[in-house]
Amino acid sequence: MEIKELGEFKLIERLTKDIKPTNPSTIMGVGDDAAVLRYADKETLVSSHLFMEGIQFDLTYIDMEHLAYKCAMVAMSNIFAMNGHPRQIVVSIALGKRINVTNLDQFYVGLKAACAKWNVDIVGGDTTSSYTGLAINITCIGEAAKEDIVYRKGAKPTDIICVSGDLGAAYMGLQVLEREKVVYYQQVEEFNKKLKEAQADNNKVKLEALKVERAAIESFQPDFAGKEYLIDRQLKPEAPGEVLQQLREAGIRPTAMIDISDGLSSDLKHLCKEGNVGCRIYEDKIPIDYQTAATCEEFNMNLTTAALNGGEDYELLFTIPISDHAKIESIKNIRQIGYITEAKLGEYLIARDGNEFQLTAQGWVE
Amino acid sequence: MEIKELGEFKLIERLTKDIKPTNPSTIMGVGDDAAVLRYADKETLVSSHLFMEGIQFDLTYIDMEHLAYKCAMVAMSNIFAMNGHPRQIVVSIALGKRINVTNLDQFYVGLKAACAKWNVDIVGGDTTSSYTGLAINITCIGEAAKEDIVYRKGAKPTDIICVSGDLGAAYMGLQVLEREKVVYYQQVEEFNKKLKEAQADNNKVKLEALKVERAAIESFQPDFAGKEYLIDRQLKPEAPGEVLQQLREAGIRPTAMIDISDGLSSDLKHLCKEGNVGCRIYEDKIPIDYQTAATCEEFNMNLTTAALNGGEDYELLFTIPISDHAKIESIKNIRQIGYITEAKLGEYLIARDGNEFQLTAQGWVE
Repeated sequence: MEIKELGEFKLIERLTKDIKPTNPSTIMGVGDDAAVLRYADKETLVSSHLFMEGIQFDLTYIDMEHLAYKCAMVAMSNIFAMNGHPRQIVVSIALGKRINVTNLDQFYVGLKAACAKWNVDIVGGDTTSSYTGLAINITCIGEAAKEDIVYRKGAKPTDIICVSGDLGAAYMGLQVLEREKVVYYQQVEEFNKKLKEAQADNNKVKLEALKVERAAIESFQPDFAGKEYLIDRQLKPEAPGEVLQQLREAGIRPTAMIDISDGLSSDLKHLCKEGNVGCRIYEDKIPIDYQTAATCEEFNMNLTTAALNGGEDYELLFTIPISDHAKIESIKNIRQIGYITEAKLGEYLIARDGNEFQLTAQGWVE
Repeated sequence: MEIKELGEFKLIERLTKDIKPTNPSTIMGVGDDAAVLRYADKETLVSSHLFMEGIQFDLTYIDMEHLAYKCAMVAMSNIFAMNGHPRQIVVSIALGKRINVTNLDQFYVGLKAACAKWNVDIVGGDTTSSYTGLAINITCIGEAAKEDIVYRKGAKPTDIICVSGDLGAAYMGLQVLEREKVVYYQQVEEFNKKLKEAQADNNKVKLEALKVERAAIESFQPDFAGKEYLIDRQLKPEAPGEVLQQLREAGIRPTAMIDISDGLSSDLKHLCKEGNVGCRIYEDKIPIDYQTAATCEEFNMNLTTAALNGGEDYELLFTIPISDHAKIESIKNIRQIGYITEAKLGEYLIARDGNEFQLTAQGWVE
């Protein structure tokens, strides 16, 4: 169904009718000028993310359900990175002309799945049209006790630098998706060329054969064999809430923390800048999945660069006092990759061969 | 300066370096994964708005400073519409290719001016690039005592329907801007045609004359004489915070309230639906400025339609108990336009001639 058949108000009603807040902090969710929340004993955490078609996502290889799930997880990830609990999201969406009601229903399926995972309420938003692509903004609101909040600043010399999970996989997943996209469009281009020639010649035999070829292209299956984990990390990232639970159980409170969205290198530089410290990390300590390594080799790409600068890992990067060294060893999903130094010692990666390389930051502006 | 010369992190630093939170509820503003707020004794209000280039704004006639001011005011308006106080905003912006650092500086000038007006802190956001146009999302966070919050629901039969300010002006301002845009582009088109002809003939006299004409077009001044108020209402709307102050001073607590963004008709229908009531409003009671009326006549447009369905008024529409009738009369900026009825009596406008017309809603989907 086209969105214009439904109209704005019926559309919003359709999307939000079965949304029932479950958090005690949600007093009033969707349906008024603003959501009403109550955070009496805790600090309120707020973070906002904007996702633009063609920049943060490509609808060629992510469907609306995964897209919504990813956007919500990215927004929640920032609340976890403060050692907080996400509780509500507010969702703004600008709909490109190609988006129909079914697409939007799928979007809400993904949104609700992400929210269900972390018991987060959808409490409001804004829906508008767009002359160009799809744009999505998610504001995530969460809570934390004052004494639990972990800021980016706070790392001290001798603190151990830790990361959860593994790095570079989402970035390599993107490379695989991009490659398959190119393969697909090459097939389409070649097909169109052949079709044009056959039409010009009015060659009926060829035209008939091309029908079969068209069907084959239409049922194009990208080749993700042996790369399933990478695709999953790119299209279905998970916010790192479980890591915080593990840290709490182990009695560890990080001194500084950030989620890895821009890449280990950039995000570690943020921690160093905010804490006015330096760092040393070891190339051979960076956790990397087997599929990431194998695909880097296949693509002839530098593995450490993928892990350092790839981004979109949504793992936690944090520092702990050296005295917690023994405690952290028991958590199998966390790796110690280096240590904090005085600021004057700079920010360096120590390569496998012992050489030191200065860490460089990368943003979206190249 | 081009944004790519600066890079993402330096850009954010440049834009946020002199932002100093002043609200006691702002514990930590810009610079971490999330803002940290404290609303111990009050309810937290959250509202989000997405503004897309070509839909909500046209950079042909709004500059970056006014655009930011307007976006911030629109977001704050929703907090006022709950009878709350806006305290923080979180700003996400996706930058189209044409936006340079100076444009973005201007955007922040407008943002800061809007925030200064209502003592609101900028506490965070997200900056990204855009392949297409500019996209802006503003999340406004505010506070209200539990007993002060006014919801959309709550209107009861016999309640008086009130509006602040006057209606239809922003919409007519848009019509004037659109007209001047057309005038300008006609001049450009005619000029280009003449230039092409003169170039084809290599007519040096004509080419010389066209230089003068080009200068005239480049210094094109739109004709806003007698329409200044309309332009102001369209390009520089103000959030209706002062009205709430007046109501408090008069000892009036509205039973239901909404800000008029979609148009009186749509927004009144929201109040009726949420409160499960009907309404009667009188055409001759709707407050309309002289410039709005004069311009409607000039444009041969229906004045009541402009006031009912124009939208972007950012005035408050609210209901009060009939017992507050005398109290409200002392507030000169507020007009009583009708009354609430039982739901079964429907939602009607009573025209000047006594005829009744059913109110119809309009959203952005036509």
